Amino acid sequence: MNQQLIFTDTPGAELDRIVDAMGRPQTVVVADVNTARLVVPALRRQSRTLSDAPVLTILAGDAHKDTNGLQYVWHGLEELGATRRTLIVNVGGGVVTDLGGLAAATFKRGLPMVNVPTTLLAAVDASVGAKTGINFNGYKNLIGAFYEPAASLISTCFLGTLPRREFLSGYAEMLKHALLDSNEALSELLRHEPDFYAGGGDVLLDMLRRSVAVKARIVEQDLHETGLRKALNLGHTAGHAFESLAMARGEALPHGYAVAAGCVVALILSHLRLGFPSGALRLFASYVTRHYGPVAFTCDDYPALLGFMAQDKKNNAPGRIAFTLLEDVGRPRTDIVIEPDNIKVALDIYRDLSGI
Amino acid sequence: MNQQLIFTDTPGAELDRIVDAMGRPQTVVVADVNTARLVVPALRRQSRTLSDAPVLTILAGDAHKDTNGLQYVWHGLEELGATRRTLIVNVGGGVVTDLGGLAAATFKRGLPMVNVPTTLLAAVDASVGAKTGINFNGYKNLIGAFYEPAASLISTCFLGTLPRREFLSGYAEMLKHALLDSNEALSELLRHEPDFYAGGGDVLLDMLRRSVAVKARIVEQDLHETGLRKALNLGHTAGHAFESLAMARGEALPHGYAVAAGCVVALILSHLRLGFPSGALRLFASYVTRHYGPVAFTCDDYPALLGFMAQDKKNNAPGRIAFTLLEDVGRPRTDIVIEPDNIKVALDIYRDLSGI
Repeated sequence: MNQQLIFTDTPGAELDRIVDAMGRPQTVVVADVNTARLVVPALRRQSRTLSDAPVLTILAGDAHKDTNGLQYVWHGLEELGATRRTLIVNVGGGVVTDLGGLAAATFKRGLPMVNVPTTLLAAVDASVGAKTGINFNGYKNLIGAFYEPAASLISTCFLGTLPRREFLSGYAEMLKHALLDSNEALSELLRHEPDFYAGGGDVLLDMLRRSVAVKARIVEQDLHETGLRKALNLGHTAGHAFESLAMARGEALPHGYAVAAGCVVALILSHLRLGFPSGALRLFASYVTRHYGPVAFTCDDYPALLGFMAQDKKNNAPGRIAFTLLEDVGRPRTDIVIEPDNIKVALDIYRDLSGI
Repeated sequence: MNQQLIFTDTPGAELDRIVDAMGRPQTVVVADVNTARLVVPALRRQSRTLSDAPVLTILAGDAHKDTNGLQYVWHGLEELGATRRTLIVNVGGGVVTDLGGLAAATFKRGLPMVNVPTTLLAAVDASVGAKTGINFNGYKNLIGAFYEPAASLISTCFLGTLPRREFLSGYAEMLKHALLDSNEALSELLRHEPDFYAGGGDVLLDMLRRSVAVKARIVEQDLHETGLRKALNLGHTAGHAFESLAMARGEALPHGYAVAAGCVVALILSHLRLGFPSGALRLFASYVTRHYGPVAFTCDDYPALLGFMAQDKKNNAPGRIAFTLLEDVGRPRTDIVIEPDNIKVALDIYRDLSGI
């Protein structure tokens, strides 16, 4: 991984330093309508580079992470006379870093880019790992490229205004990373409320640094997702199934909420199959239930949930359902095939633990 | 460069061997309306893999190397249930290898692909070097990615039916490669008529092998076109200007014809600036004039031609015009800035040598 990960309270100043080191190329910002209004002006005040940089503003929301948005950025870069040296600065959440990243990867076969994630989820997840992409024909991230930013500038200074459910969504990925890391990292997260102000900005920046390091370490060893990177899929097999079920019912279930519940299911299976300690399972499940609430379903939903799990795009075991599980905190095992009856047992236990 | 370059009289059998080594993944062919009709049936008879492989057929011609064609292939891959292991086999000229290559580079963030070039130009140029792309908003290859095929299967068996001007276009790139290679390689090309049957199929396959090796050697040393690869731009600064002038007049000038004339201009400048031997220049110019005819222009066109040269996208010298030139056959120098008055002198000499 060649990407610089910079944890900072002054992202604008850090950006100027990077741009100076690159010989001050033309710089173009990609933002969405929210970050263009709420974040870019603050960054402009901090940064000489951004003070007069043009901004290509896409529509906000995952529904607009599509070919129209991509072509809009391509057009904009062409009109601005972008060359192969032009620097793209993506300012936003995962939609902006994914779409702006794919535009940077493909315009003139690749321009340098820097990510400035403005949501907790983007800071901890989307801005690291070289994945870019758009949705296509109803499929999430069907089109994309592996393309590394030159740097991600990770800061807590944009997170204070996030809606609580957005913050919780990012925190769920941090919980997942802690499960993949160590008991110490997990205790640190479970000790705090999942709230920007609970630990103060410095504590949060430290937690972010540690959380991102888990992902960076795994991605570094497996940039193109051939093996180890599947550890990061912890909680996502059941989590995606919960999301799909909610979508089929026309209900809203944020990705992070689904992942948090999916991690509980993964820990239950880990306990049953690999002897994951029950004490850690209970602590984790109660934290998730308290802050995220249970995902509601009955045993009538089991066939649908199993069907969604079998379709998971990272599932390499055709006709069977494979999970990333843990022998203990920090010790992942990937591609563990679980029989449908045992998955149903785990869903029963999830409902017990969550009090539904 | 990880790409296998396979020179063969039996591309279908070679493809089966590659597919076997990959564990026989799902295989999808990308072709255009011409190659789907004229080439794919012959390949199907040679190849177990292709006998029942689905074919995604795009429209023929550079005008269709666009976002519509790209989205058509993305849609097709999605409908066929392509996974990250699905093998794309591009069967066609540069339009197919460029567009099919970009689709392969971006579907699910990258599928393996094999190129089967069916034109001389694609065999000698487009199928080697990891460039993929589409035209966008009137600009050639504005959108694309560097993405290597697993293999290119280079064969002369599809070239016998090429229109003469198509064949000559490819031969011009071979002439350029020979200029970058050695006197021996250049003599070999100048000794033959630029015609499929002149030397017999085996001689042509040998010349192709040698020509492709020149490009492969240069690309290997500079995959992302930061320096040395510019040597391959020999003849293209003036060549692109001739193409643009023709386009502005509504005339058709095939790329290879423009490059052949552009190489003559580059050799004239090489002689004036770097002492390139005049004997080789005269031999080369007379071969080009005899087989390609002169590009027609007068001194009234000089300002327009200089304007086009200054806009060349590989020109890193803002406001000035830089060329790839030769000290001698096989000894390129890149980024040689030439003053406008000296370019005009070279254009005068070109007109003299070409008898216009």
